[in-house]
Amino acid sequence: MKTLESMALRSDGKQLWVLDQTLLPDEEVWLEAGQPEAMIHHIQRLAVRGAPLIGVAAALCLARFAEDGATHAQLREASSMLREARPTAVNLAWAMDRMDRALAGDLADLVLEAEGIFEEDVALCESMARHGLGLLGTGEAVLTHCNTGGLATAGIGTALGVIRRGFERGLVRHVFVDETRPLLQGARLTAWELGRLGIPHTLITDSMAAILLRDGLVQRVLVGADRIAANGDFANKVGTYGLAVQATHHGVPFHPVAPYSTVDPMCPDGGSIPIEMRNSAEVKGYRERRWAPKGTSVFNPSFDVTPVELVTSLVLDRGILDQTSLKARPFAML
Amino acid sequence: MKTLESMALRSDGKQLWVLDQTLLPDEEVWLEAGQPEAMIHHIQRLAVRGAPLIGVAAALCLARFAEDGATHAQLREASSMLREARPTAVNLAWAMDRMDRALAGDLADLVLEAEGIFEEDVALCESMARHGLGLLGTGEAVLTHCNTGGLATAGIGTALGVIRRGFERGLVRHVFVDETRPLLQGARLTAWELGRLGIPHTLITDSMAAILLRDGLVQRVLVGADRIAANGDFANKVGTYGLAVQATHHGVPFHPVAPYSTVDPMCPDGGSIPIEMRNSAEVKGYRERRWAPKGTSVFNPSFDVTPVELVTSLVLDRGILDQTSLKARPFAML
Repeated sequence: MKTLESMALRSDGKQLWVLDQTLLPDEEVWLEAGQPEAMIHHIQRLAVRGAPLIGVAAALCLARFAEDGATHAQLREASSMLREARPTAVNLAWAMDRMDRALAGDLADLVLEAEGIFEEDVALCESMARHGLGLLGTGEAVLTHCNTGGLATAGIGTALGVIRRGFERGLVRHVFVDETRPLLQGARLTAWELGRLGIPHTLITDSMAAILLRDGLVQRVLVGADRIAANGDFANKVGTYGLAVQATHHGVPFHPVAPYSTVDPMCPDGGSIPIEMRNSAEVKGYRERRWAPKGTSVFNPSFDVTPVELVTSLVLDRGILDQTSLKARPFAML
Repeated sequence: MKTLESMALRSDGKQLWVLDQTLLPDEEVWLEAGQPEAMIHHIQRLAVRGAPLIGVAAALCLARFAEDGATHAQLREASSMLREARPTAVNLAWAMDRMDRALAGDLADLVLEAEGIFEEDVALCESMARHGLGLLGTGEAVLTHCNTGGLATAGIGTALGVIRRGFERGLVRHVFVDETRPLLQGARLTAWELGRLGIPHTLITDSMAAILLRDGLVQRVLVGADRIAANGDFANKVGTYGLAVQATHHGVPFHPVAPYSTVDPMCPDGGSIPIEMRNSAEVKGYRERRWAPKGTSVFNPSFDVTPVELVTSLVLDRGILDQTSLKARPFAML
């Protein structure tokens, strides 16, 4: 395998590492991830996360496993297990579909396919950013949720990629960042990325977004997506649906940004997207710090579904889909 | 002073204590609070909190200070300083107004006034609950924000008082509790109170409320209030405004619950309510645990304002005010 490097993923041709995103922003620890069991563990505990990135990471892991001499049967089994590591983001299943098809060929084909998935993701991010720029006015303040940047993709990101390229052109001047409870990807990851990029930003609790939208302090909301159904409904990090309702109520444009690999044309609508439920400890505290009473019952869906009606327009690598385009069911060809 | 005891406040006739609410639910530590400087410190660091309770606590502190031999001038100065301890909740200023008037009399009058404020708050809670019960159907699931119970008043609480009496009568079967970032009063205090009362409840992050409202899992939203303006707009813990928007969008009834001491007839509308801004550390983490990058900028208003248009009806100790009553400016006589 080639030498590959992104903000959260590295291969030196012999070993594959992922950045342990659970320890950011204070510690930068890289974890070996060349064995499927290890990668599944990293994906499930969210050391590696972000819908596009987990697809890329799983593909590279499978290629690495093949180079280590795994048999065809072992690779099939590993692909199947990697695919099941998390249920909601469809990019993982999409990447495993591609790798399964490449398994029909030889080792070189498999490695090329994984490298291709990585490199394509980098290019898709730039395409989304290019299209997304067309939405932006001048000097906008934007609001985002969760993390959708270099820690969520192999490239500059989805929503955060649009924001980054927009900032470079003066179209974005400030970013408000939802902290994104329970796992705080906004506070820990997006604030860290924006700090590294020198983009001015302000951190808020998720419950404060409504005030900013009401007071005209935010001109646009940009978020990622984990799975887009055939009718345009989409799943994303929990809190996205509420944010879409707030944006609609206050007349602020709301845009999911995603590559075509996030579209699941087999999924008719949002109600058919499987939603991962996670453990109660995530809501009762953060990591080792619990603050709710021990026995408290918790509701903890990791994602929610936003109906297409609340989408101003969807930014894909292939262009912008507004409500009219979305109603025409444009994903049938995918 | 009499022996007085509530969930969060105690007087044995010689000393006054407040329960340190910052250490709940895991530790129950009582703090001496008979000196005005000590009480101001406890109020500002939220060891004692809740709009009605801080008014009661400040009044009792002033009476205790008088019994310790404070001069008239010292009492006037202490009243003025206590009044300034937190800006948003008007109950504190209301209680200090009453104590200032009682300062015209002798020591016994002052002590009686403070005891009267305590006992009246207990009775007001029962009155709010009695009126609030009339709103409830049978076996409702309700959603609440922040803490509005025995830790926020001298009695059974405002919104949580309605819920408690409603549960005893079978009108409430389940409570969903917003964790209430940044200071987590829902996760720490409301979950603890509901646990002690044996009322079934589920903790959620603030961003999950929209899903429950959309899916019909919640029949009613009940919240407290820190200040109600003459036109019916009200300030409450940050996140309340967003919750009111969500309830309205999903057609779920939304009710603030408060005693008449929360109404500020001198304040024409929500825009005139002073909003306390707190320090950035509260958003960058929780207590000693920081998770955002060190230098991150933060927006941290402790309260937000909900316009009267989003209020289904307001529950006061004197009755229920619906939109028609609210439009008649019913607070003019207060």
